[in-house]
Amino acid sequence: PLTTIQTHNYQIHHISLGSHTGTHIDAPSHFIPNSLTIDQIPLDQLIGPVVLIDLSKHIVRPRQRIVWNDIIKQCDEKDLKPGVIVVICTGWYERWGTQEYFDHPYLMEDVAKGLIERGIRAVAVDMLNPDETVLEGEGENGFKFHQVFLGAGGVIVENITNLKSLIGLQNVHISLLPLKLEGVDGSPLRAIA
Amino acid sequence: PLTTIQTHNYQIHHISLGSHTGTHIDAPSHFIPNSLTIDQIPLDQLIGPVVLIDLSKHIVRPRQRIVWNDIIKQCDEKDLKPGVIVVICTGWYERWGTQEYFDHPYLMEDVAKGLIERGIRAVAVDMLNPDETVLEGEGENGFKFHQVFLGAGGVIVENITNLKSLIGLQNVHISLLPLKLEGVDGSPLRAIA
Repeated sequence: PLTTIQTHNYQIHHISLGSHTGTHIDAPSHFIPNSLTIDQIPLDQLIGPVVLIDLSKHIVRPRQRIVWNDIIKQCDEKDLKPGVIVVICTGWYERWGTQEYFDHPYLMEDVAKGLIERGIRAVAVDMLNPDETVLEGEGENGFKFHQVFLGAGGVIVENITNLKSLIGLQNVHISLLPLKLEGVDGSPLRAIA
Repeated sequence: PLTTIQTHNYQIHHISLGSHTGTHIDAPSHFIPNSLTIDQIPLDQLIGPVVLIDLSKHIVRPRQRIVWNDIIKQCDEKDLKPGVIVVICTGWYERWGTQEYFDHPYLMEDVAKGLIERGIRAVAVDMLNPDETVLEGEGENGFKFHQVFLGAGGVIVENITNLKSLIGLQNVHISLLPLKLEGVDGSPLRAIA
């Protein structure tokens, strides 16, 4: 705390965190030079109807690669259209706080391309990273999902939790509003559906 | 930035701010010992129908005191009921970034009591502070609005902007979701209506 109720009548904390801490959003400028920062993303890109891709029963292996075919098998392809927010539930969020959390499944480049081709500009994942996380440097596929999806003006929400509670629900809408941090490449956010 | 695209392929910023920076919410624990912190506030207290109190044409003097009678003259008293979010538009947000911003109008204790008596537990103001802001220490009325309203389990959103765009609209709902910062007394937030 910066102040306490005992000494100042009120309590204030100092908050110090990375722009990609906890549940957060990646702006295009996280990977793409001279692209949109977090304060410049239109809010209507961040609120919308959900297409939930439930992979939690199918993709449970560490570092499993998720390809476009895995996605379209778990949804009605005609639902993948401009304005929807694709939410990918691997169930990996249940490993938050463990070493296993870093060994999450990851999305191949064809998933980014498939979503972009269908006009989708927002995706949320219950993992640390849609690309592979390695201790040093990059995985074999680098940051291709980030580069393709953010490169097309998309945004990615990472570390979203409690997705299993959405399975089976109809007409779910989600809100993924970041703080308005000028010039910054990402922001923690409070997601609700 | 902590990393740059040139050197690391991606850019990350470090964010450092007070828990009461910009548009933000005060949790009860901002003033009340052993009370709710920001992560403990039920989300349904933070999303709801708006009762807009437009004082922007009436209360325009620096350090003007706003009393309960000013509030009920600008609304239909039967709209003040549990679950609504009272949004007080003084127009003072237009002075953001100037010295005058500190000389904002402020709410007297009877406003806090009137709202609490009607079951209202969330209020948003377009000012730095619902109580008087003085350079050193406290104003003549201290922090009574904070103490009474937070003391009854209410939350206060400060520095909200663009309220004039809501004047005259019907059936406005507002969302005031803070970050889920464990044990903290307040949080910046992105407000939408």
